[in-house]
Amino acid sequence: MPRRIREQQMLDAAVVTFARRGYRAASMDEIAELAGVSKPLVYLYLESKEALFSACIRREATALGEAVRAAVDPAAAPDRQLWCGLRAFFTHVAEHPDGWVVLHEQARAQGEPFAAEWSALRDGITEFVTAAIAAAAREAGCGPELAGDEVAGVAHALVGAAESLAGWAGSRPGQTGRETAATLMDFAWSGLDNLMRGRRWQPPPNP
Amino acid sequence: MPRRIREQQMLDAAVVTFARRGYRAASMDEIAELAGVSKPLVYLYLESKEALFSACIRREATALGEAVRAAVDPAAAPDRQLWCGLRAFFTHVAEHPDGWVVLHEQARAQGEPFAAEWSALRDGITEFVTAAIAAAAREAGCGPELAGDEVAGVAHALVGAAESLAGWAGSRPGQTGRETAATLMDFAWSGLDNLMRGRRWQPPPNP
Repeated sequence: MPRRIREQQMLDAAVVTFARRGYRAASMDEIAELAGVSKPLVYLYLESKEALFSACIRREATALGEAVRAAVDPAAAPDRQLWCGLRAFFTHVAEHPDGWVVLHEQARAQGEPFAAEWSALRDGITEFVTAAIAAAAREAGCGPELAGDEVAGVAHALVGAAESLAGWAGSRPGQTGRETAATLMDFAWSGLDNLMRGRRWQPPPNP
Repeated sequence: MPRRIREQQMLDAAVVTFARRGYRAASMDEIAELAGVSKPLVYLYLESKEALFSACIRREATALGEAVRAAVDPAAAPDRQLWCGLRAFFTHVAEHPDGWVVLHEQARAQGEPFAAEWSALRDGITEFVTAAIAAAAREAGCGPELAGDEVAGVAHALVGAAESLAGWAGSRPGQTGRETAATLMDFAWSGLDNLMRGRRWQPPPNP
């Protein structure tokens, strides 16, 4: 079996183990057993528990960042960009619950250097969202209305709302990424004012 | 000096030290020196570093929760309730930056039993927000439109947005709680759709 594939199997086993046991309680024995390889082979490929945990964070962060970016067409209308990005985010998190726990709970809780890997992902997504909102606001002709600094604030609010909602959705069995994204669209696009008047955001007919 | 006052001085010193050094690096010597008392007195009053940290978390969480609840008049219009609650939250965080770091960064990062104290505060505020949105939606006559489960989702999104924005505001010297609250009102009340058309939420004339 090629090294690349075996390494992915080790990372798969490590993500599950770190997410369910926590970083400190997870043992290399358990990870090796779940991956179906010997412990020395895990050490040969990934050096140490720290290096293995870092590799898990990097892999899960890259996959999540790529899923969101790939889903957004910068030429689409702003609400469609937001809908596609959010749906990709919540679907990815719903399909990779252990990866989300490793990123959002474990990486932050272990402090440096792991927390910095999570921060880098979060900052990258926030910058991406800031640029998308700024571009949409410029196109809508309200550049000076929605000034640069406030766009960054709104992007931080949106990213925080998505993070928090991902945790809530994770505690609801059967909740799909699409459903969670629709709830956040109602909140973020239409706003509470419209929502309380029964005016929801309407998903585009073409899914 | 009465015990109660001396204890508050120790907690003041401990919050500053835990926020700036981190829980693990903070020393009881440093806390005692900053509080202007002897180290044995800190141990006499607060038993251990763990107990001192727990007492800090409880005190800061109680103060933050009370500041938000006290600011909201349940008889006011929904946008006024939201505005007053958010303004109280961001003003409290801006005035107690070390307390916020202890709650939001340190308590979570140290795992149990400390993380549970933060979770209890966060869950309490989320329940309070859920009840407020549900009451406002019922009054607006869109009870079935905005069903129970989705109200909880919207409340989680709002709490996550506020948390994230508090971190952003903390990195901007001179940013007031009122300014941060206005940014979140624009986002949460008016929604991105209105915001991009230059339609902001208008603060009430009576501050």
